[in-house]
Amino acid sequence: MSQNKFEMDFYPTRTGSESKIISRTDPVVYSDSYDELTKEQVEFFEKNGYLIFENMFSSDEISTLFDELTSLSYDETKKEMPQFILEETKRDVRSIFEIHKISELYGGLCRDKRILKIIQQLLRGKAYIHQSRVNLKPGFDGKEFYWHSDFETWHSEDGMPKMRAVSCSISLTKNYEFNGPLMVIPGSHKEFVSCSGKTPDEHYKQSLKRQEIGTPDKEILEKMVDKSEIVSAKGGAGSVIFFDCNIMHGSNGNITPYPRSNVFFVYNSIYNKLVEPFCGLNPRPDYIADREFLPLEPVDNFLDLN
Amino acid sequence: MSQNKFEMDFYPTRTGSESKIISRTDPVVYSDSYDELTKEQVEFFEKNGYLIFENMFSSDEISTLFDELTSLSYDETKKEMPQFILEETKRDVRSIFEIHKISELYGGLCRDKRILKIIQQLLRGKAYIHQSRVNLKPGFDGKEFYWHSDFETWHSEDGMPKMRAVSCSISLTKNYEFNGPLMVIPGSHKEFVSCSGKTPDEHYKQSLKRQEIGTPDKEILEKMVDKSEIVSAKGGAGSVIFFDCNIMHGSNGNITPYPRSNVFFVYNSIYNKLVEPFCGLNPRPDYIADREFLPLEPVDNFLDLN
Repeated sequence: MSQNKFEMDFYPTRTGSESKIISRTDPVVYSDSYDELTKEQVEFFEKNGYLIFENMFSSDEISTLFDELTSLSYDETKKEMPQFILEETKRDVRSIFEIHKISELYGGLCRDKRILKIIQQLLRGKAYIHQSRVNLKPGFDGKEFYWHSDFETWHSEDGMPKMRAVSCSISLTKNYEFNGPLMVIPGSHKEFVSCSGKTPDEHYKQSLKRQEIGTPDKEILEKMVDKSEIVSAKGGAGSVIFFDCNIMHGSNGNITPYPRSNVFFVYNSIYNKLVEPFCGLNPRPDYIADREFLPLEPVDNFLDLN
Repeated sequence: MSQNKFEMDFYPTRTGSESKIISRTDPVVYSDSYDELTKEQVEFFEKNGYLIFENMFSSDEISTLFDELTSLSYDETKKEMPQFILEETKRDVRSIFEIHKISELYGGLCRDKRILKIIQQLLRGKAYIHQSRVNLKPGFDGKEFYWHSDFETWHSEDGMPKMRAVSCSISLTKNYEFNGPLMVIPGSHKEFVSCSGKTPDEHYKQSLKRQEIGTPDKEILEKMVDKSEIVSAKGGAGSVIFFDCNIMHGSNGNITPYPRSNVFFVYNSIYNKLVEPFCGLNPRPDYIADREFLPLEPVDNFLDLN
């Protein structure tokens, strides 16, 4: 069923037929040695598809990251860049893509060894940034993001061949249970949900605001939650969650005054470089799905670089 | 500033001017004796404006209530009644107003002594049902409900003169932190937020779906939350929350598969009967704001009546 002329499609999706489950054939954890993560941590990640660390970054480090973000958000010249996603009604910044290239500080952050060494252990070997962004989910009217597997989109629209990518989200604000924290379904990363529907042209322009194509049917979601549970990634500013590229996740809206901001890095293995998109359309822009594949080298502390 | 020709307006709102705080002049707890509620419970309610009871109703009782609701929801003849509020896109029932009159079972429930005696203690003396409804907040696409004080609407649109009313919500499903539980701001019931804007004609037709007029400004909400916190009413099916008519509350949307259903009774003191609406418009229909003022007598157990 592959739309890709040169590559075997192990995870066909959006082929127009019904939504269905396909077993994952790829490992979750690629390395079998324990250096950064202990055996228990690796086993937890393998089983559940996520791992949370409280206080991985100090409040001083978070302040520095936040200040950089504030100054970028107020830079009117930058707002014209396609990487800057603005709120529909206002001129407020909602997300900044490719933040690791736009900001040297964030460029250092994605190489900070506290994060990168964990990534290199999970993916076994070198990794590069497939996508990076900061999200500024405002208080009072933060929108929900419906359940989806990131890999489903990256496979279909970006041509990521296999599941050998891990996401990392660093909280810049406190994640309460109230302000639309990330919710995951533990264990859901072990099944690929092949979704119904077809990818429209330039789907990313719509899907970054509200994703509908590439989301699982209600019946499948109900079964996944029945079999497992829902866990929300609560935690203070400076906490970090690592999660598998195929875990089912989403977030509710936020009417509270508490904003929710985070940095989001997607690390892909250099042995899993992008090919042509499996949906058969043109690839998404480079600032959403990088095609430079530059392997990252760890640095001791991102602040030392600046 | 009153729009009401015969009554003094202690809580002017929607007068076209800016949003502002007016101190509450009415007591929160009217009785000074302790029978149903202990001194500690009364003090907690007085200070915080709410009180939660786990397992007030058994799972058998909840099943009976749920079955009644299911059979009402599938009764196509009843769906034509104005009391039945349907989802915009579907024919599914979203709320049923005046449930205590439509169903004998729920008519008994609002008089069940486990609830009514607490109400009579808080309000000192006899009370009647100002409004009743069941809400069936579905999973997957439950909508958020923005922050508001119920009293602000009841005063403005129904002509409730003073703050001498208490709401009671009985959970028919489990309230998780994920599925849009009721959120309250403890202590907010002691200040009345006079809202900006003007009430449009037949406002209830819009506001029951999404309230915009009669909601506080962001700055006021931020201050309220800074001064206090947010508490969400989590709990199992059969848990009950009592909350003051003027407490600021709202709920987030719900993308999880877990539905959220509850019964909602508003008890008003017979010494606080409705007058003409203070907004100067016609009163809302009786099924939303009752004008019979029939005092309730407690019954031992609502199931014994049926």
